[in-house]
Amino acid sequence: MQQPEQTLRLAAIPGDGIGPEVVAEARRVLDAVLAAEGRRADVVEYDLGARRWHATGETLPDSVLEELRGFDGILLGAVGDPAVPSGVLERGLLLRLRFELDHYVNLRPSKLFRGVASPLAGEKEIDFVVVREGTEGPYVGNGGAIRVGTPHEVANEVSVNTAFGVERVVRDAFARAQARPRKQLTLVHKNNVLVHAGHLWSRTVKRVGEEFPDVTVDYLHVDAATIFMVTKPERFDVIVTDNLFGDIITDLAAAVTGGIGLAASGNVNPDRTTPSMFEPVHGSAPDIAGQGVADPTAAILSVGLLLEHLGLGAAARCVEAAVEQDLAERGSAPRRTSQVGDDVLSRLA
Amino acid sequence: MQQPEQTLRLAAIPGDGIGPEVVAEARRVLDAVLAAEGRRADVVEYDLGARRWHATGETLPDSVLEELRGFDGILLGAVGDPAVPSGVLERGLLLRLRFELDHYVNLRPSKLFRGVASPLAGEKEIDFVVVREGTEGPYVGNGGAIRVGTPHEVANEVSVNTAFGVERVVRDAFARAQARPRKQLTLVHKNNVLVHAGHLWSRTVKRVGEEFPDVTVDYLHVDAATIFMVTKPERFDVIVTDNLFGDIITDLAAAVTGGIGLAASGNVNPDRTTPSMFEPVHGSAPDIAGQGVADPTAAILSVGLLLEHLGLGAAARCVEAAVEQDLAERGSAPRRTSQVGDDVLSRLA
Ligand SMILES: CC(C)[C@H](C(=O)O)[C@@H](O)C(=O)O
Ligand SMILES: CC(C)[C@H](C(=O)O)[C@@H](O)C(=O)O
Repeated sequence: MQQPEQTLRLAAIPGDGIGPEVVAEARRVLDAVLAAEGRRADVVEYDLGARRWHATGETLPDSVLEELRGFDGILLGAVGDPAVPSGVLERGLLLRLRFELDHYVNLRPSKLFRGVASPLAGEKEIDFVVVREGTEGPYVGNGGAIRVGTPHEVANEVSVNTAFGVERVVRDAFARAQARPRKQLTLVHKNNVLVHAGHLWSRTVKRVGEEFPDVTVDYLHVDAATIFMVTKPERFDVIVTDNLFGDIITDLAAAVTGGIGLAASGNVNPDRTTPSMFEPVHGSAPDIAGQGVADPTAAILSVGLLLEHLGLGAAARCVEAAVEQDLAERGSAPRRTSQVGDDVLSRLA
Repeated sequence: MQQPEQTLRLAAIPGDGIGPEVVAEARRVLDAVLAAEGRRADVVEYDLGARRWHATGETLPDSVLEELRGFDGILLGAVGDPAVPSGVLERGLLLRLRFELDHYVNLRPSKLFRGVASPLAGEKEIDFVVVREGTEGPYVGNGGAIRVGTPHEVANEVSVNTAFGVERVVRDAFARAQARPRKQLTLVHKNNVLVHAGHLWSRTVKRVGEEFPDVTVDYLHVDAATIFMVTKPERFDVIVTDNLFGDIITDLAAAVTGGIGLAASGNVNPDRTTPSMFEPVHGSAPDIAGQGVADPTAAILSVGLLLEHLGLGAAARCVEAAVEQDLAERGSAPRRTSQVGDDVLSRLA
């Protein structure tokens, strides 16, 4: 793997609500861990999100999108605001970035760290990763409606799935499964109802799997997968799934591993033709914004994923280890945002 | 409500795997509770499912569908078999029945009964009902694929949502919420991504809600709803949702209330122009079929829903009370299928 320059060129999109608060702590950790390696990050902040939309009506100007293409990576906080109509920022900013930058692997690790309380009863060993497709499925935005607002309205949503799009994400998931000790891949879909998309996914997993004979493969319908998430989450190693199913099961996965305050994610283009984007799974949480109480752990762990993607594996493991130690010693009881930042910083090896 | 005749005319579709085993116990309970009221059920069994498909290639012959229309209600066990290609029986039989008989309310109560172990930590009070739309959404089967099996395959799935279809199920959900003590309705969708369908759902809930001013309404994205299912399931009273989201969250709901061995469901046509169909949420469970160990509780509770729908509320409550007492006293430790039947029968008031 190519080693990045001494200076990483990163874009930060702190966004709305608690986004800026958690990104600030994530950046402190990033700076510290890079400094320890004699590197640094040059971070350009972009003001995108609800504030900009309210002020200018813009979600993601084309010129900004073009600038973003020039970075090594992007760190995103959270976007969304109750005063913005539902869908405007999601489709116009977040999903537009994922689609335009071809983030076809939406990577979401789920690990129950020591010291963290799970809502599940009993002792659980949870450590899996969801490879969620990021550029197809019901997220493509190819729907529409006629006779809107009348008793004869018809609103359609079209899920688009291509052999090209499914194969590349499936291949990525197999490679990740192969690199893990258990080497186990579960396809999650609903191929008994969504037969066209589902059979494409199933056939693709079968075919690509022939190239990975040491990876064990199984299949679960998405509804059954949610059952196992709460009754037997330890059965999962790597999950590969569609964009929408991935959205749903990764929130559930976050919940069973202690909450979305801890869940990191990467919107990854494994081909490295565009910058990948890293963000906590949680939203902008307007109810607690500005109080300095948001948990920045997910944002900090997202920095770990960013470093890993950029080929800085040692730095990435440093971040994860610091968080792991912090949680093991302090537990997941509420702390102030900056306190968590301080505590993790103090544990960086 | 119109009182049914002394004799109920019912169809039973025991189906595959454990279906016949659980339906047998459900029928014993049905017979007993009706006898106590001086009524009886005339039950005609239909051989539909994997066996028939293997023998004849038929899933649901038109003539059988026409016969089924003549009954007061239908009791279904489970359909599905690993040797039948995925989707054949689901689309050709189960979903065809739901669509042809216009079962637009897929009713799925979730209650954590006393004596039942939940996979969630701590004491929980769970008692909600999901009103899942049953005739629209991504389940319509309006998808297709081109260039199947080639590197240029495109497989689409179309979710169809109509003002007519959404309004009638939303209205039903409001009525159910209004009849419950807490009078709380939660719409679950993903209206920040699936904006066309989602906005139709949101607008409809808002508009119909004006006719139910005493019902409190809120909204959750489906991903967030799965979080609350495990962290705060007691927040739910009535949920109304789309066909696919309903499929997913009701399996999860079943899991947190002790498993799909206990989850009953009704495929209901509230207009009573066709027979409604009642079935356990679980599948045919081929791995334990024929051993006499399947839990018939969900099938028995489905009989309760059937009786309620047919206007026999007292008999329905009798069934539910017997199950409730049985679980409270015996817990949910494994018993033989017929033993559960015996135990519930012995508790019928
Ligand atoms: C905000 C929303 C568009 C987004 C998604 O659905 O992908 C979020 O839920 C996530 O999981 O990152
Ligand atoms: C078997 C399948 C078609 C069905 C569905 O998806 O509706 C089942 O999962 C259910 O929930 O009743």
